[in-house]
Amino acid sequence: MLDLFIELGNLKKLKRAGWILRGIPNPESIADHSFRTAIITLYLADELRRRGLQIDPDRAVRIALLHDVGEARITDIPLPALRYVDKSKAEIKAVADLLKLGPAPEEYYRLWLEYHEESTPEGRLVRFADKLEMLIQALEYESQGVGNLEEFWKVLPLLKESEFYPYFEDILKTLVELRSKKRSL
Amino acid sequence: MLDLFIELGNLKKLKRAGWILRGIPNPESIADHSFRTAIITLYLADELRRRGLQIDPDRAVRIALLHDVGEARITDIPLPALRYVDKSKAEIKAVADLLKLGPAPEEYYRLWLEYHEESTPEGRLVRFADKLEMLIQALEYESQGVGNLEEFWKVLPLLKESEFYPYFEDILKTLVELRSKKRSL
Amino acid sequence: MLDLFIELGNLKKLKRAGWILRGIPNPESIADHSFRTAIITLYLADELRRRGLQIDPDRAVRIALLHDVGEARITDIPLPALRYVDKSKAEIKAVADLLKLGPAPEEYYRLWLEYHEESTPEGRLVRFADKLEMLIQALEYESQGVGNLEEFWKVLPLLKESEFYPYFEDILKTLVELRSKKRSL
Amino acid sequence: MLDLFIELGNLKKLKRAGWILRGIPNPESIADHSFRTAIITLYLADELRRRGLQIDPDRAVRIALLHDVGEARITDIPLPALRYVDKSKAEIKAVADLLKLGPAPEEYYRLWLEYHEESTPEGRLVRFADKLEMLIQALEYESQGVGNLEEFWKVLPLLKESEFYPYFEDILKTLVELRSKKRSL
Amino acid sequence: MLDLFIELGNLKKLKRAGWILRGIPNPESIADHSFRTAIITLYLADELRRRGLQIDPDRAVRIALLHDVGEARITDIPLPALRYVDKSKAEIKAVADLLKLGPAPEEYYRLWLEYHEESTPEGRLVRFADKLEMLIQALEYESQGVGNLEEFWKVLPLLKESEFYPYFEDILKTLVELRSKKRSL
Amino acid sequence: MLDLFIELGNLKKLKRAGWILRGIPNPESIADHSFRTAIITLYLADELRRRGLQIDPDRAVRIALLHDVGEARITDIPLPALRYVDKSKAEIKAVADLLKLGPAPEEYYRLWLEYHEESTPEGRLVRFADKLEMLIQALEYESQGVGNLEEFWKVLPLLKESEFYPYFEDILKTLVELRSKKRSL
Repeated sequence: MLDLFIELGNLKKLKRAGWILRGIPNPESIADHSFRTAIITLYLADELRRRGLQIDPDRAVRIALLHDVGEARITDIPLPALRYVDKSKAEIKAVADLLKLGPAPEEYYRLWLEYHEESTPEGRLVRFADKLEMLIQALEYESQGVGNLEEFWKVLPLLKESEFYPYFEDILKTLVELRSKKRSL
Repeated sequence: MLDLFIELGNLKKLKRAGWILRGIPNPESIADHSFRTAIITLYLADELRRRGLQIDPDRAVRIALLHDVGEARITDIPLPALRYVDKSKAEIKAVADLLKLGPAPEEYYRLWLEYHEESTPEGRLVRFADKLEMLIQALEYESQGVGNLEEFWKVLPLLKESEFYPYFEDILKTLVELRSKKRSL
Repeated sequence: MLDLFIELGNLKKLKRAGWILRGIPNPESIADHSFRTAIITLYLADELRRRGLQIDPDRAVRIALLHDVGEARITDIPLPALRYVDKSKAEIKAVADLLKLGPAPEEYYRLWLEYHEESTPEGRLVRFADKLEMLIQALEYESQGVGNLEEFWKVLPLLKESEFYPYFEDILKTLVELRSKKRSL
Repeated sequence: MLDLFIELGNLKKLKRAGWILRGIPNPESIADHSFRTAIITLYLADELRRRGLQIDPDRAVRIALLHDVGEARITDIPLPALRYVDKSKAEIKAVADLLKLGPAPEEYYRLWLEYHEESTPEGRLVRFADKLEMLIQALEYESQGVGNLEEFWKVLPLLKESEFYPYFEDILKTLVELRSKKRSL
Repeated sequence: MLDLFIELGNLKKLKRAGWILRGIPNPESIADHSFRTAIITLYLADELRRRGLQIDPDRAVRIALLHDVGEARITDIPLPALRYVDKSKAEIKAVADLLKLGPAPEEYYRLWLEYHEESTPEGRLVRFADKLEMLIQALEYESQGVGNLEEFWKVLPLLKESEFYPYFEDILKTLVELRSKKRSL
Repeated sequence: MLDLFIELGNLKKLKRAGWILRGIPNPESIADHSFRTAIITLYLADELRRRGLQIDPDRAVRIALLHDVGEARITDIPLPALRYVDKSKAEIKAVADLLKLGPAPEEYYRLWLEYHEESTPEGRLVRFADKLEMLIQALEYESQGVGNLEEFWKVLPLLKESEFYPYFEDILKTLVELRSKKRSL
């Protein structure tokens, strides 16, 4: 298990490549992002269950913690590289291998697969949280003065199509409002 | 909820003060640490349950995600300051206030309290994971050449007294061995 | 004395928390701020004496050099934390203890207290210089593109109420003008 | 052409992944490395020609300038990822596409291919210079106190097998000596 | 030669002073700039030759690689210092001395002198590329939100007077257009 | 005066070149160094006066605050550059010009000159404090693991020849002892 914990340390050292390519100096790490994604998942999942949805918040949180572990091996290969690299295939193999450093690799791998294949509500919720987390971060960078993040907001329509959007419309609307308020200053 | 998620962004910006005071340039953030603590907690708790212990891994993971959220308000007040600041009292109030930005604040607060008061096996496991995470990070910094981290290892005896130590003796022994190997190079 | 000098090195490592929480990457240190505050104090105090005010510039400069030394022990606890931490009490004790590492601790402590309690013109002038220094820094960050520093300028009305404002009205007016010019670009 | 120059700016923002994974804070960029590789190539190639070897230094320098341009698109995918990603295939396509942003793409692409396939003395010399540059950097990091770079030196035997080694044995021997001297301090 | 390669490592560690004085956190290094200047020179020179101009692209590239090597000894002394320091004289001597660490120092020195004295088309082209590279970087920083770079664009009229401007008018016009587009957002 | 205060902000942005050239990532700024030099001067001067020496601590502190202001214009030109640049001449003119941005330029300039020419006990004490500050910083970097700072300690014999050495022998002996203790670990 220790080997696994040590290798997951890479997620602290690796900064998210999307921000790096926009020139943001010393942006958040993959671990930074994973942490907030996990806690957002926790809150969203609990809320959904309170509202009567059939969802297992604890499985969702487990998935959130695991959703980016593959990047400890393959790093955060950014968007412009995806035309050249089969990241999905690479990630599947890397996650499978990496998890073998710990006990019950298949159990954790199956959880990760729910995210990767968006095959369960829990897996899809993590994807929703993953994108929401990125938008909150984009808003923060923009309010700090960063100016070329338009492209990140293209994920908004995708979030609106999500089965979870009706439950969290408020959050996303407020996010967009905060953004326009800050940009009009 | 959005306000809560935004404020938790502070945990990405705030670097762990213990490393800063040792002069480590640009060390891990509180969020970095929280992420690995949560995933370590997940693995340790699942393992304990597999070995027959009465423990709820999912509650443990929730606690791990929440264990440092108070620092989004009070920052990571370091050891030398604790003679002057009642951090425990400050944290109790800060966590309570912060969680009110989200739904079900009392439910999450009670989870955090299990950690703070070490009143449940799950709360104590997070404390174990929290310290283990710190030692793995210390090992990493030392293997990178950082030279003045002796003090952090004073937590080892404390870990050995933990009810969970017998289950994870291996991990800690290997950690210490890796350390001596690296130091003798 | 050496122990004191070594511990004051913390002020170089600790970055000012207000800027960190606005996401400014690698902002000025407490020592950076203390340096310019001291030199501003020197200039303002000498000017006041030239204009006939009863003020001891040299005592003012001593106070300026000491005004933030407590943060070497308690760190720069930021505004949002002050609801939870009694910083004033912590600082009083930390400064007293820290100065005991050098000779004549009470003499230096009494100087610091003039700042802390704003009990002398010299102590109040350092407070004025401390805030002015912060505004000049805010202007610099804003002119570099940082966008969310509105809150720092709320200190302006406070400066206007100061007994020293009439002497330095020009400086503050120019500062505000420079700011509007830059923002209208 | 401007689009090409702009995109090559990525090579300044992207830090070399090998150093990042060793925890080196803010290591050299890909452009940093490419610059010294190019100038090393210039010196080595001129020297080889002076010694009577059939080699075109100017073509070698061109190759050196181009040797890592593909990483502007696919980033510096590090060693542990190569088990999962076909970097060679990705790079071939990325370089071809990227160079189309400028004139005469095929001419420059063929130069890059000489390096990639090690099909000409000039291409092989750039590979030699590329590795030599990395070792000089490793030595610099080690002399600064970085402690876990043993693995990088495994490239030494490879350099010794190179057709150019006999000409530059001195440089490599001195490099290794400097290393042992520094490590014995 | 190794001594020379090691000392050129300074160009990676030294950040360009113009950006530092504008408060850009962790800006490009001199090596970063030199790399892109060299590759821009390569493309411009080849293009000029294709268009029938009498120019030796390979000599131009050599000059570009060497154009800032003196800063490994004298650092990037910025504009406001030039009133006090005879940089030209210092650079001439520093470059001459530095190149003596390698073979054929006079040959490389003469190349550098072509740039310094703008005495050949190749030397002048490197100066053109040097400035163009700086403007592309300024555009990048501005599009990231940096706000006080107006002064750098004062080099534009100088570029327009260059003998090479008619060939690359397009590039410069597009650059300026990109800038206005970004600023009007 | 505001112009002066703004320009002194450069001392926060400019990192000390000696550390940069040793590869220390993000080292202390000139302002960081000036701050601790000023406070060391304060303590040493007061101590000397207590011990009966004829020295004006307040003038010494003023000199300390001013001792590096010229670097706001000419930057921290490092040791290897001094063979090529007449730093002393440059600094004299830069300090004179810079101080003209504030009132009473000649008064402050004369103070600075006492340091520059080592013409008064106060000026020489600042030089002593300046070097002592550097050694304390070197010790800190070394205890953090930095490995190539031997050269900085060559200043020790110079300090031993100072008229102030007999008074502060203890401090320097302890400093050297701390160093050997740390190196033997």
